[in-house]
Amino acid sequence: MTEAAERSPEAGRDRDRIVNLSDGVFAIAITLLVLDIRVPDIPEGMVASELPAALLSLWPKYLGYVLSFAVISTFWIVHHSIFRPIREYDRGLLYLNFLFLMFVAFVPFPTSLLGEYGDHQLPVAIYACALAIGRLLLTAIHWYSTRDDRLVGEPQDPGEVRFYLIRGLAMPVIFLLSIGVSFFSVGAVIWSWVV
Amino acid sequence: MTEAAERSPEAGRDRDRIVNLSDGVFAIAITLLVLDIRVPDIPEGMVASELPAALLSLWPKYLGYVLSFAVISTFWIVHHSIFRPIREYDRGLLYLNFLFLMFVAFVPFPTSLLGEYGDHQLPVAIYACALAIGRLLLTAIHWYSTRDDRLVGEPQDPGEVRFYLIRGLAMPVIFLLSIGVSFFSVGAVIWSWVV
Amino acid sequence: MTEAAERSPEAGRDRDRIVNLSDGVFAIAITLLVLDIRVPDIPEGMVASELPAALLSLWPKYLGYVLSFAVISTFWIVHHSIFRPIREYDRGLLYLNFLFLMFVAFVPFPTSLLGEYGDHQLPVAIYACALAIGRLLLTAIHWYSTRDDRLVGEPQDPGEVRFYLIRGLAMPVIFLLSIGVSFFSVGAVIWSWVV
Amino acid sequence: MTEAAERSPEAGRDRDRIVNLSDGVFAIAITLLVLDIRVPDIPEGMVASELPAALLSLWPKYLGYVLSFAVISTFWIVHHSIFRPIREYDRGLLYLNFLFLMFVAFVPFPTSLLGEYGDHQLPVAIYACALAIGRLLLTAIHWYSTRDDRLVGEPQDPGEVRFYLIRGLAMPVIFLLSIGVSFFSVGAVIWSWVV
Repeated sequence: MTEAAERSPEAGRDRDRIVNLSDGVFAIAITLLVLDIRVPDIPEGMVASELPAALLSLWPKYLGYVLSFAVISTFWIVHHSIFRPIREYDRGLLYLNFLFLMFVAFVPFPTSLLGEYGDHQLPVAIYACALAIGRLLLTAIHWYSTRDDRLVGEPQDPGEVRFYLIRGLAMPVIFLLSIGVSFFSVGAVIWSWVV
Repeated sequence: MTEAAERSPEAGRDRDRIVNLSDGVFAIAITLLVLDIRVPDIPEGMVASELPAALLSLWPKYLGYVLSFAVISTFWIVHHSIFRPIREYDRGLLYLNFLFLMFVAFVPFPTSLLGEYGDHQLPVAIYACALAIGRLLLTAIHWYSTRDDRLVGEPQDPGEVRFYLIRGLAMPVIFLLSIGVSFFSVGAVIWSWVV
Repeated sequence: MTEAAERSPEAGRDRDRIVNLSDGVFAIAITLLVLDIRVPDIPEGMVASELPAALLSLWPKYLGYVLSFAVISTFWIVHHSIFRPIREYDRGLLYLNFLFLMFVAFVPFPTSLLGEYGDHQLPVAIYACALAIGRLLLTAIHWYSTRDDRLVGEPQDPGEVRFYLIRGLAMPVIFLLSIGVSFFSVGAVIWSWVV
Repeated sequence: MTEAAERSPEAGRDRDRIVNLSDGVFAIAITLLVLDIRVPDIPEGMVASELPAALLSLWPKYLGYVLSFAVISTFWIVHHSIFRPIREYDRGLLYLNFLFLMFVAFVPFPTSLLGEYGDHQLPVAIYACALAIGRLLLTAIHWYSTRDDRLVGEPQDPGEVRFYLIRGLAMPVIFLLSIGVSFFSVGAVIWSWVV
């Protein structure tokens, strides 16, 4: 800890740069989602009669947009509270964080798949897997940074850390369980996520 | 306030991260608008004769670009002045802000719809609704953060807050009223927004 | 200045938020340029024989990428040195800056037009106009913020300010003159920009 | 150094703005990579039977995504450790940094090319060249900023600097050597990069 205290403003600014890059990836991934909702192509004479139905038929896209926006927002909130106590960083934290960002930046693809073929089981399973892995990586970052209070500024309450780690495992388990449920009803799974 | 004062630099930096993420979403949403203006596809031999007309016929796209750029800029200016006095934050503020960002990031879609089918009434109504909801969410953030001076650094003048809340309701009302007008003249509505 | 001194850290942070948003728009506009270079579509059996020629024929796209990257970088450097002494801001500065960003974010469209129809005169003229207006807006921001030393932290040397204003008018003039030249030779104009 | 010390907070903030812009470009380039993985287009009745194979056949795209994500992450980590000691900046550093960013922002194109025609030699050579040049520019930034300790806050250990410069030349050499290898086996080259 003394070494940390010595180069504290330096390390703090470096840590900020990691957070800034992560926020950039979050912001872009969340905003790219809208590119998947394409304006329907309707011949000039039939716009008035066909546009309402065409827009309504895009509902899986809207649902995917709202769902993934909510998921990435939740990831951001968790990432935010995990990084709050972190003061130091090392190569391991950098690699784990990049691995996590790789899944955040990937979310638009399974979302697009879900919006296109959401009534089939495979896209639902892929989507659930991608989010479960992303959430597990967040839990890994949390576990890595709080283990022996290595990278955090002040000792953390072990009971509280354990509580968060267990909660961090709950969401992936729910997502993976939902793959099993999706063998019976795909619609039920997606609506349960939204709720 | 004492609790706030105790963890003040901490809370200030966390608040900055919320603002940074929001600015990222603003910057990307505002820049993605240009992707909707596509270069016209003209056979090689006819470029010189047909390009001027083809570029002119894109005017609804240019209009949509300028309009949405102005709207998102205005949202940013209001967001900016609402967050200036905020020192603390809680889950409620985070959720409201993400809900608002969901509408900011969504703006490219109704803009694209307006650029494609702007002479019809439905796209105008959807565009007006999206902006009215976005503006209402900004007002909700303002109301939420200044209620009982909970999240702001220093007590706000109640008269001033009420003035801003009322002004914050005016724009959505105008947008929603314009939907009614659009039953008579779609062009009039869009030009009134630009002005 | 006394009012400025009183709320100085506050105003400094607000100014930083304007700079951050601008940097976001710069970073995105500069990175979107690459989306215009599309991978050529070649039937499976003929890739080995046709890919080299197909990639070479994309050279106007590469040229447009390098040219616009250089232009936006130059805009960033000028924006950077204009905002360095600025300490205060007002509505006028916000509006001028957003108007400028509207042209920065627009650059991918004329670039794309140039990459597609660069051997014609109209795209060259549009490109030159867009950049000239962008550069003029930067000069307007400079003039607006240094007039009577209103928004800058300390009095500026009037001779130096005048020198920069004149230099800021030179580039638009060159770009606009190049439109005249383009009546004679389109290629010469583009190569002169690169140089 | 005295001049540096005099305008130190100023220069520090300016340096931060360069770093912020760079991080923005990194974040966007890394997130745009996903746009290259397109949802396959399958007729409604055959989704259940054909989707698994269609998704599997996208594996060169997934590989390209992971590879380029890893490369840009590595570039970021190196950029990060090169800029850490930098306190001052000049035009030369700005230009070198923009030249480097031009290659970072360009990475999505060779990645896309690799994902489409990865079993041919030319895309592999182009990809290797782009990365080798990017890495060389990073080394140039390092050499430029540490030469005579000009732009760094405190004198650097010459032995350490030399060690990093040599290491900075190793990766480009490996990439360029791999072009030679690719004459024999394209697959071997790509898998060696991943490892």
